[in-house]
Amino acid sequence: MSSAIESVDITDANAVAAGTNKPVRRVVAGGVAGKLMGYKAMVNITADELAKENLNTLLARDREEKLKYSKQKHISEQPWTFGNWHQHVNWLNFVLVLAIPIMGFALATRCPLQWKTAVLGVTLYILGGLSITGGYHRLWAHKAYSAHLPLRLFYAFFGAGCVEGSIKWWGHSHRVHHRYTDTRRDPYDARRGFWYSHMGWMLEKPNPRYRARADISDLVDDWVVRAQHRHYISLMLFVAFILPCLIAGYFWNDYLGGFIYAGIFKAFVIQQATFCVNSLAHWIGEQPFDDTRTPRDHILTAFVTFGEGYHNFHHEFPSDYRNAIKWYQYDPTKILIWASSKIGLAYNLKTFSQNAIEQGLVQQQQKKLDRMKASLNWGTPLSSLPVWDKEYFFEKSKETKGLVLISGIVHDVSGFITEHPGGAPLIRTSTGKDATTAFSGGVYAHSNAAHNLLATMRIAVIKDGDVDADTFKVQEQLLRRKKGDF
Amino acid sequence: MSSAIESVDITDANAVAAGTNKPVRRVVAGGVAGKLMGYKAMVNITADELAKENLNTLLARDREEKLKYSKQKHISEQPWTFGNWHQHVNWLNFVLVLAIPIMGFALATRCPLQWKTAVLGVTLYILGGLSITGGYHRLWAHKAYSAHLPLRLFYAFFGAGCVEGSIKWWGHSHRVHHRYTDTRRDPYDARRGFWYSHMGWMLEKPNPRYRARADISDLVDDWVVRAQHRHYISLMLFVAFILPCLIAGYFWNDYLGGFIYAGIFKAFVIQQATFCVNSLAHWIGEQPFDDTRTPRDHILTAFVTFGEGYHNFHHEFPSDYRNAIKWYQYDPTKILIWASSKIGLAYNLKTFSQNAIEQGLVQQQQKKLDRMKASLNWGTPLSSLPVWDKEYFFEKSKETKGLVLISGIVHDVSGFITEHPGGAPLIRTSTGKDATTAFSGGVYAHSNAAHNLLATMRIAVIKDGDVDADTFKVQEQLLRRKKGDF
Ligand code: HEM
Ligand code: HEM
Ligand SMILES: [Fe+2]
Ligand SMILES: [Fe+2]
Ligand SMILES: [Fe+2]
Ligand SMILES: [Fe+2]
Repeated sequence: MSSAIESVDITDANAVAAGTNKPVRRVVAGGVAGKLMGYKAMVNITADELAKENLNTLLARDREEKLKYSKQKHISEQPWTFGNWHQHVNWLNFVLVLAIPIMGFALATRCPLQWKTAVLGVTLYILGGLSITGGYHRLWAHKAYSAHLPLRLFYAFFGAGCVEGSIKWWGHSHRVHHRYTDTRRDPYDARRGFWYSHMGWMLEKPNPRYRARADISDLVDDWVVRAQHRHYISLMLFVAFILPCLIAGYFWNDYLGGFIYAGIFKAFVIQQATFCVNSLAHWIGEQPFDDTRTPRDHILTAFVTFGEGYHNFHHEFPSDYRNAIKWYQYDPTKILIWASSKIGLAYNLKTFSQNAIEQGLVQQQQKKLDRMKASLNWGTPLSSLPVWDKEYFFEKSKETKGLVLISGIVHDVSGFITEHPGGAPLIRTSTGKDATTAFSGGVYAHSNAAHNLLATMRIAVIKDGDVDADTFKVQEQLLRRKKGDF
Repeated sequence: MSSAIESVDITDANAVAAGTNKPVRRVVAGGVAGKLMGYKAMVNITADELAKENLNTLLARDREEKLKYSKQKHISEQPWTFGNWHQHVNWLNFVLVLAIPIMGFALATRCPLQWKTAVLGVTLYILGGLSITGGYHRLWAHKAYSAHLPLRLFYAFFGAGCVEGSIKWWGHSHRVHHRYTDTRRDPYDARRGFWYSHMGWMLEKPNPRYRARADISDLVDDWVVRAQHRHYISLMLFVAFILPCLIAGYFWNDYLGGFIYAGIFKAFVIQQATFCVNSLAHWIGEQPFDDTRTPRDHILTAFVTFGEGYHNFHHEFPSDYRNAIKWYQYDPTKILIWASSKIGLAYNLKTFSQNAIEQGLVQQQQKKLDRMKASLNWGTPLSSLPVWDKEYFFEKSKETKGLVLISGIVHDVSGFITEHPGGAPLIRTSTGKDATTAFSGGVYAHSNAAHNLLATMRIAVIKDGDVDADTFKVQEQLLRRKKGDF
């Protein structure tokens, strides 16, 4: 005998997946705002720490923390009380996704919206939104295609203005989300409720017990990503708030309006739209490709997220540059990428094969069908039926006036005689007899429905009979043989 | 051993089905027009002949005819020529379904349509159409429910005005159609083309080789049916043409208009609509219940036929008083029957069980799915793969850099390494090894789609390995075991 085949070392492979098996380039986060949308336990690990750490030190620290929390529980494991609620809250995120927008709403009462400012806001909303979906998400987090410098600069610039953190942070937590979907390690774990997956997860401190890592060394290899991360705070403030303020002020003297509407409001709307991918897209809609996990397809989610709403597809085929595959589905991000490739700004667009896509569809439909089948009455399975010998059938036929033998199976049709669409006399002629041929084309080739009905009337199987449960198939064989007659 | 169970005598049973096993009431056909929509070979058998004939005389005559046609071919078996075309045509039907309408169109040029006459025509069209669908078809031909005298009189009266023959004739050929659907015995055999099933069948003489009979003794038991049949010609002429002429003439002095529009035109439209059930309903639309025969469901057919367009359903469930089962489908005939039952005019409404209906849907969907499945690549079946022992796997792994063992199956992933959405390094770590656990949750619980992809890369099976082709199921079992981890 040969020796066993070596198994992949799970610990080593996890280190590869987390990117902790090799030194990672040092990239210093650009201040607190760079950490938005990463959660605290993750924020505590800086890039250089990641680089230095190997699996053993990580494991050692996990053990340490476990010990610590076995004595004193982490804040996330304690109930919310009047005394500790402020410890539960992630105040940085609170300011960036709630306090600033509320301030914006308050200021808005003093500043009427001008239509030029509105147009500016909508324009920046579109540029920012597409930078998140086409850039942050499909380009960087999923490597669904490659992009030349101008497009990457565009994405990094306008993406920063969405106040959702740097590409590096965003890509990391998104990869963790895909890798750990619907587990406690999933940062936006949809199983914990709509609110939690929408904003709750970023407003309260998470449990470090469930920390997770994903390899993002390929992101850090891109100088655009590194530069954006380093200068994130200033870039974000400039693109998100100062730029719209200056444009609206310089050209039509609406500094405050530009700040409020094309700045704060725009950022708020983009944030909410992005959050919808984590909440709505895991809650409403169909699951045409797989229903073992929460992601769902819904046109509504697609509308608010520039086409990211076909999320059931996306979780099955994450590195496909498309989210929608049918022409009538709404996926402007896909069109942007496709158009960019036509003018040479994007290349290497990845798609999953049509075969793989249709396999998913077929398997999911099969599941649904199996569920429907299980809820219907298909007649007693033959193996659960009593076996009668012929003598017993004769005897019984004298007592009960509605026994008909078809395909080696005894059916009690007494309750159906007067219901028979072909008339009572024909069934009466057949009771106590073998009606296989008559029923299967000799007199009338019954519909598939009639064969189903017949099965529900099974009561016994004839010993040594030519038994076949699929009477419709038996009929088709009989008909094929007598084809010449027609 | 017991003696064999007697089989149903096919000849006897066919006699029962044809109604030739017992004397049938004598009902004299009311002139040539009563025979409309029956075809010539049928028309030659009058009701009293049927009553006198037993199976033996029928068989004898069949033999006789066979002999006759073996010498001289029946007109229907001869090609159409300049010399014999007038022998091919069924002139009675030609007059009733083509000549009269053409005459009507010609007269119409001289007689402008008045709106009152139009309303009368539409009213009579509705009353006539519903009498065919609710009366001729569902009540009498299919016994889908029972009706009290007033409703039967209503149907018989307005049904006569549709110039489609008597209930007796109509019901007979319709039962033959259902019993012999898609065979040469089917009077409107859809397999012979759209035109043939629409009107061709009644305009040319059929081949008596394919004559067929159905038992209609239950129809003849109804005195309304007998009376209508006896007086058909006068009743038809009166209801179809004279009545609308008189009404329009007496009340708004439009005798000619009443005759043309509310008489001839109305009859023409109803005829065409009815013919559509034989043609359109076997040609356009979906087959949600069964696709082994031609009938189809289509909203368009339903619209022109007062709801008879769900013909795939109808051929599976002919004695169901409904044709449409969903609330949003158009079936006014069903509503008429249902409303009649609410006011006591109809009773004993028959439906097939929801179970039987859903069984049909499920089976048909399964067929479609199986067809789709068969067109996709699911990877080489394990039984067609070579069996490698472990030694051979080691050896091969040295040559080819992309062999991965998962679930006892060897996969060649070399072409996929750089395509891997989880990154190339993870696959590289796994080559030459058993990656079952890593692939199935140890590092990442792959999507169903990934498992499908994996299957397409199979190249061999490991001897004495723990082989399972359903790697997704294997993964789900593994995940269930380590549930506690999340
Ligand atoms: C024993 C159980 C039987 C069941 C459950 C049954 C069921 C049905 C059903 C559901 C139909 C409606 C049409 C269709 O679905 O195809 C039908 C019609 C008919 N059946 Fe049966 N049948 C039985 C036995 C027989 C036998 C033994 C005969 C002949 C000896 C027979 C002859 C006919 C005929 C002639 C029709 C009329 C076809 C038509 O006009 O649509 N049936 N039967
Ligand atoms: C050998 C054949 C393999 C195939 C065909 C394959 C296929 C895929 C596919 C299609 C995805 C996209 C996400 C999904 O569909 O679930 C994926 C992601 C991934 N795979 Fe694999 N994989 C293979 C091997 C491996 C191995 C051996 C490992 C681990 C040792 C691994 C780890 C991962 C990880 C970590 C991801 C990223 C999850 C994410 O961010 O979405 N894969 N793989
Ligand atoms: Fe998601
Ligand atoms: Fe994603
Ligand atoms: Fe039909
Ligand atoms: Fe019918």
